[in-house]
Amino acid sequence: MILSTIASHSSLQILLGAKKEGFKTRLYVSPKRRLFYSSLPVVDELLVTDDMSAILSDDGIVVPHGSFVAYLGLEAIENAKAKFFGNRRFLKWETTFELQDRALDRAGIPRVGVVEPEDVKPDELYFVRIEGPRGGSGHFIARGSELEERLSTVDDPYRVERFIPGVYIYVHFFYSPVLERLELIGVDERVLIADGNARWPVKPLPYTIAGNRAVVLRESLLPQLYDYGKAFVEAMRELEPPGVIGPFALHFAYDGSFRAIGIASRIDGGSNADHWYSELYWGERLSMGRRIARELKLAEDEDRLEEVVT
Amino acid sequence: MILSTIASHSSLQILLGAKKEGFKTRLYVSPKRRLFYSSLPVVDELLVTDDMSAILSDDGIVVPHGSFVAYLGLEAIENAKAKFFGNRRFLKWETTFELQDRALDRAGIPRVGVVEPEDVKPDELYFVRIEGPRGGSGHFIARGSELEERLSTVDDPYRVERFIPGVYIYVHFFYSPVLERLELIGVDERVLIADGNARWPVKPLPYTIAGNRAVVLRESLLPQLYDYGKAFVEAMRELEPPGVIGPFALHFAYDGSFRAIGIASRIDGGSNADHWYSELYWGERLSMGRRIARELKLAEDEDRLEEVVT
Amino acid sequence: MILSTIASHSSLQILLGAKKEGFKTRLYVSPKRRLFYSSLPVVDELLVTDDMSAILSDDGIVVPHGSFVAYLGLEAIENAKAKFFGNRRFLKWETTFELQDRALDRAGIPRVGVVEPEDVKPDELYFVRIEGPRGGSGHFIARGSELEERLSTVDDPYRVERFIPGVYIYVHFFYSPVLERLELIGVDERVLIADGNARWPVKPLPYTIAGNRAVVLRESLLPQLYDYGKAFVEAMRELEPPGVIGPFALHFAYDGSFRAIGIASRIDGGSNADHWYSELYWGERLSMGRRIARELKLAEDEDRLEEVVT
Repeated sequence: MILSTIASHSSLQILLGAKKEGFKTRLYVSPKRRLFYSSLPVVDELLVTDDMSAILSDDGIVVPHGSFVAYLGLEAIENAKAKFFGNRRFLKWETTFELQDRALDRAGIPRVGVVEPEDVKPDELYFVRIEGPRGGSGHFIARGSELEERLSTVDDPYRVERFIPGVYIYVHFFYSPVLERLELIGVDERVLIADGNARWPVKPLPYTIAGNRAVVLRESLLPQLYDYGKAFVEAMRELEPPGVIGPFALHFAYDGSFRAIGIASRIDGGSNADHWYSELYWGERLSMGRRIARELKLAEDEDRLEEVVT
Repeated sequence: MILSTIASHSSLQILLGAKKEGFKTRLYVSPKRRLFYSSLPVVDELLVTDDMSAILSDDGIVVPHGSFVAYLGLEAIENAKAKFFGNRRFLKWETTFELQDRALDRAGIPRVGVVEPEDVKPDELYFVRIEGPRGGSGHFIARGSELEERLSTVDDPYRVERFIPGVYIYVHFFYSPVLERLELIGVDERVLIADGNARWPVKPLPYTIAGNRAVVLRESLLPQLYDYGKAFVEAMRELEPPGVIGPFALHFAYDGSFRAIGIASRIDGGSNADHWYSELYWGERLSMGRRIARELKLAEDEDRLEEVVT
Repeated sequence: MILSTIASHSSLQILLGAKKEGFKTRLYVSPKRRLFYSSLPVVDELLVTDDMSAILSDDGIVVPHGSFVAYLGLEAIENAKAKFFGNRRFLKWETTFELQDRALDRAGIPRVGVVEPEDVKPDELYFVRIEGPRGGSGHFIARGSELEERLSTVDDPYRVERFIPGVYIYVHFFYSPVLERLELIGVDERVLIADGNARWPVKPLPYTIAGNRAVVLRESLLPQLYDYGKAFVEAMRELEPPGVIGPFALHFAYDGSFRAIGIASRIDGGSNADHWYSELYWGERLSMGRRIARELKLAEDEDRLEEVVT
């Protein structure tokens, strides 16, 4: 069996995980990224192409990640002939505020407050969030008094949220239909260009993501996050049957309590950061990419592939 | 042999480490945390209870961590029938400024300066530290001119320290009576709610700990820290015979030189962050939790359990 | 075969890596650091001495790191009788702005802008960088209006750079002559004393390095960095034949695009931070220290030692 993906986002861990679980790998890569990916022994078949839509008719099992929707479009993915790991109809749930809120609300997970224009106060801080997964690009914080002017230049759909001063953590889950088990695989925080202000504040900087670091949370915070993950899985089972298959992430602001700021309805780039919680379930360290491959192997061994592939 | 602990603080690494070293595990968990802990294969026996004091008469070996004193009280622990890994009389040494200072001073480890009210200068910054391990909750920095007003609302015992602008690092040690060896297992930094100001300073935020990240120190800083660890072990041998058995941590501010700001007289939560220094001693990665289990196994194999259990 | 190094900088990973690859290890350590290093089973032979130049006539293979030039001097190293892993004439390329710039320019890697005194503007921020690897010590940021006064007290060679507000990342490469392959082994960010301002800005603090943390970059940023690494290897092959053998690092500011701020022409201390990218090449985690030992083993097995030793 061959696992196929696109050279971007979290393909490195997907490829490595696939090889470790005994699969062949196929990678679609654009010409300008060829040099790096062609140096990696974890790639069995390298398809150099500017047209990523070739993967839509791949004859292996396609493992989608956070670049798929941007590269291919939701509709093309939903209609593709290729087999996808996971519930391909789940992919859209991160793409709009409306779907995201519906999922979080159904799960009963508290969300960051959304502010209507008439409630903006001049001296308070607000966070302007652009819709959809964008690697943080375009988001900004601003005082109420600056909002109108700043928003006048925003072209994409956005919303104004209460700004929560505190830490922002990204929790990576894997739901296994084969084992009927939810696993909390890891936690990261984003490394933003704005973190350049940590050493000395210079000016407000872009919230664009540069990378990720693993964090361990206080253990006393994990049970609640796990309960949220479980509630999310149950909500999605109703909202988008058969529900979540495999990886997803919940994104939170934490200032003493958790408020969701978003979701990833596929493997989240933050799982690229190496974390050890998977050992609690498996006795060995599995990246999210390897966890995906492990699920495929388990499903294949039990002749249940159709439960994890759509 | 069964290792028992309470579901909190650092129990995940204790459980995982115990399983990896071949022990059975027993976990006392409160009902509201049941869902998460019951999903983990590293738990052999799950005791769901609101009354954690049940562990005081456990018939396995109890591995204490940073939540034990808060949940059970020092006196109950010291008088418990159960066998504890480590020197249970050492647990109290982190609970008061007086004991902590006595230990650090005996070891000759420089401490952060404590400021008497008459020496406070209006324009200088001070750090107000609340007594005992509190996960950072309640600490704050303030200018001298604000101190009196801010302190008027503090109900817990506290002290005023010189504020050291620099990085804060937490060094995790394990003293092995079986091998008569001190091991430097890892280093972390705390992730605080106050780190929310890194991207843009908003207002002073709580010093409450949200999590931890591993750091590696410049290698040239390690020998001095190891010497401090060694001196601490020797001091505690005199102050609380038989002294330290197993894990402890020294907490430092670093601005070019080290000044101790506290200790952990048990496994420190910061050792939840994955670190590689243990490989220097063992050729493989041992978490602090696994290091504890390894010590119990070594002791058991040599029939020296009574040297590591009290 | 025995691998020898000096107890500092990145010797821990060099020693551990050597042991894991089956070599004997010899360590030159100053008396005041003896206690720590003598506790480590990865050291086979410990030579306690105040005179590090003893290593210049070592009869094993010497693995240099970032403290060698400071301890021994470039000339002594270039003329030493001992065999060195890597191209010992490459070591000097990080020691002056001139060499560094020549290497980066030949490779076509964009550099941070250098500012001439007549172009300084009073209200802009500048970064004053002291020449040579110094662990960040002495660097500072300042407004143009403060520059003249601040620079009047700087005794070492320096230059004034445009300040790039953003994140600073350090990319660790290994070039293998045996496999004719460039490997991207990991990425770190520095932990500086100045990071003490993250929680609340107090005053500009020293840029002195206290340690390092691993980061994973957005995967979409890696191909370009790999291309830079490849170009650097090719440039050095012309500039200092036979070119790079083994580890080097490229240092970047990132504010949406990369600008090089420096290089390490040997193993970089930031590779002390544990990173997983090496698994992409080797299926198992290799530290840079172990990667060096692996190269020596490969070379020895193929009777090609003279290609990796000078």
